[in-house]
Amino acid sequence: MRDVAIIGVGMNKWGELWQKSLRDVFVESALLAIEDAGVDHIDSMYVGCMTSGLFVGQEHLSSLLADYLGTAPIPAARVESACASGGLAVRMGFMDIASGMSDIVLVGGVEKMTDVGGDGATYALSTAADQEYEVYQGITFPGLYALMARSHMHKYGTTREQLAQVAVKNHENGSKNPLAQFPQKVTVDQVLNSIMVADPLTILDCSPITDGAACAILCPAEMAKKICKKPPVKIIGAGNATDTIALHSRSDFTKLNATVKAAEAAYKMAGVKPEDIDLAEVHDCFTIAEIIVSEDLGFFKKGDGGKAAETGATAIGGEKPINSSGGLKSKGHPVGATGVGQVVEIVHQLRGETKDRQVKDAKIGLAQNMGGSGGSAVVHIMERM
Amino acid sequence: MRDVAIIGVGMNKWGELWQKSLRDVFVESALLAIEDAGVDHIDSMYVGCMTSGLFVGQEHLSSLLADYLGTAPIPAARVESACASGGLAVRMGFMDIASGMSDIVLVGGVEKMTDVGGDGATYALSTAADQEYEVYQGITFPGLYALMARSHMHKYGTTREQLAQVAVKNHENGSKNPLAQFPQKVTVDQVLNSIMVADPLTILDCSPITDGAACAILCPAEMAKKICKKPPVKIIGAGNATDTIALHSRSDFTKLNATVKAAEAAYKMAGVKPEDIDLAEVHDCFTIAEIIVSEDLGFFKKGDGGKAAETGATAIGGEKPINSSGGLKSKGHPVGATGVGQVVEIVHQLRGETKDRQVKDAKIGLAQNMGGSGGSAVVHIMERM
Repeated sequence: MRDVAIIGVGMNKWGELWQKSLRDVFVESALLAIEDAGVDHIDSMYVGCMTSGLFVGQEHLSSLLADYLGTAPIPAARVESACASGGLAVRMGFMDIASGMSDIVLVGGVEKMTDVGGDGATYALSTAADQEYEVYQGITFPGLYALMARSHMHKYGTTREQLAQVAVKNHENGSKNPLAQFPQKVTVDQVLNSIMVADPLTILDCSPITDGAACAILCPAEMAKKICKKPPVKIIGAGNATDTIALHSRSDFTKLNATVKAAEAAYKMAGVKPEDIDLAEVHDCFTIAEIIVSEDLGFFKKGDGGKAAETGATAIGGEKPINSSGGLKSKGHPVGATGVGQVVEIVHQLRGETKDRQVKDAKIGLAQNMGGSGGSAVVHIMERM
Repeated sequence: MRDVAIIGVGMNKWGELWQKSLRDVFVESALLAIEDAGVDHIDSMYVGCMTSGLFVGQEHLSSLLADYLGTAPIPAARVESACASGGLAVRMGFMDIASGMSDIVLVGGVEKMTDVGGDGATYALSTAADQEYEVYQGITFPGLYALMARSHMHKYGTTREQLAQVAVKNHENGSKNPLAQFPQKVTVDQVLNSIMVADPLTILDCSPITDGAACAILCPAEMAKKICKKPPVKIIGAGNATDTIALHSRSDFTKLNATVKAAEAAYKMAGVKPEDIDLAEVHDCFTIAEIIVSEDLGFFKKGDGGKAAETGATAIGGEKPINSSGGLKSKGHPVGATGVGQVVEIVHQLRGETKDRQVKDAKIGLAQNMGGSGGSAVVHIMERM
């Protein structure tokens, strides 16, 4: 199995991009990544996208995006695992190179979410839950994560204020990220007093609806130092796992088993432990998600995720900086792109390019991306070469 | 790169399966494949599906199907390249094993197409074409393939009757396949006089709307002979390529460049030539598609595909048997499952299990699966071990 490195990353500004179509948004990011890597061709590509069929009436992105990027006839595939689609695209590119099939691979993610009217986006997102047993009964994602939040509060004494602290910290980080959709800082009071979505989660506990894309260029590690203009970053661990799609099928709402298993696989491959991770981008689709995930990745003892947010342990200057990019919460959450966006941030951090949100001496970073109410998860661990 | 073998296949009867949901249809086929292989676990899985979001309002198949098959928490991914999604799932499984990441991998395809009402299926399928430049103007797939048919007739003198011969031959083959959706034999006159869909294509030139799934179990070739109950089949060639998504962007409507390129890659990896192929399953979504593809795979000179169908060269007893299963035309076309269904047929043929549709002395088979109007293609070449 060949070692794999990331030699270029690219991401456009995320937000409500009404003047651009899905293909424009993707190609913009892809060209930034290609330029960043300084490569003159790519051998194959993988695109993570959750549901372009429901959002913009377009499937067959393999052909569409290879065509519009000007890379056809190269092999191309779209991969999907709900909001973990982007992480999965990185995984497929990793395997393609590890197997020896391709040398230079573009992995990207894209979602164009703001073109649907009415409750179209809520419906499209709901297809990541169990359509027959959850959605049919009327539950959508804020409701599912609210159940997890209530369960965590009940079991571990996590407070409403601690949930809010996650949003405050991520918007603080996002205010230093020029590509973030909502770079505005918020206060605990503002989070607590914003519109209630699904008790206890208010609208400022929820990540937004976003248009955006993110891309990265991968190649064999031994080739990276020769062709890379900037310091390459090695993917030292890769994990992917699944869980029941329906929340009600799980014995415990306060633990995300797919994340636990994906992290175990990634730590094992990398030969590192949670304490070796200098910073992480995690899937904070709702504030409670970051709290649970920060425990399930082994950063904090089960039940201590809320306290970690409250005490500043997860802030940029803290012991375990989480979501220096602003996370899904502030940077935005174009679902299929999110997993690649996380990798873009880790690479910029490990290269020392993130200015006033830079984590000092960052050498090893972790990206955790998940689908639905945690029914699938992808974890990558990256190290500066 | 490790060699990869297919050690089990499974497919349920395809048709209008109103009493079963997508998850039922998939799990049925997956269990057949697992039983056929005789394995007691799988390490990871890949599912090809074109647009379960539009057909049944369900994405996140990685989690849903791993959960319902009872294989969670294993890694799982859904892959999509319109009607070539199934072929792509086989390719991902191949890479996963080749890379050394996994040993026993389930690859499958599924589509549940008959649950949408009105023109829902036509709309869902249209998302494989260019939504902004083709579908918006009102064209759907019968129209696109009709343009190819007219172009081929004009350039090479292909006749309306030759198109019909493809349907007649594939329904003849399908009449011997107990899993086919439409096992009825048809005559040239019936094809010519059936309802016109898009001139010159009548309804009997078109593949049907189908519910169905197909699965295969892959493992390293060196492990295959030890654990396989039945003769294993080695994947000796794998190719994937893209082309413009829109037909109007191509210089020639009578050639499918993604198929040409995918086949080149597969032949090169396998070290074989078109004349070495004993039988092929090709993507006859419309009769004209089989004619063009049979040329683009190098089986016949450009322009001679129609004559090959007319003279019986592509019949089971002919020099190059094509679609012994009945093809998409008679067996059915559950779009995401089709590419895996083709592999199922090739494996059964190479094992000598197909009774009165058996191709004599079949040692090397090829499966060609494509998306949209040929904007993507996947080719696999398989050999009896």
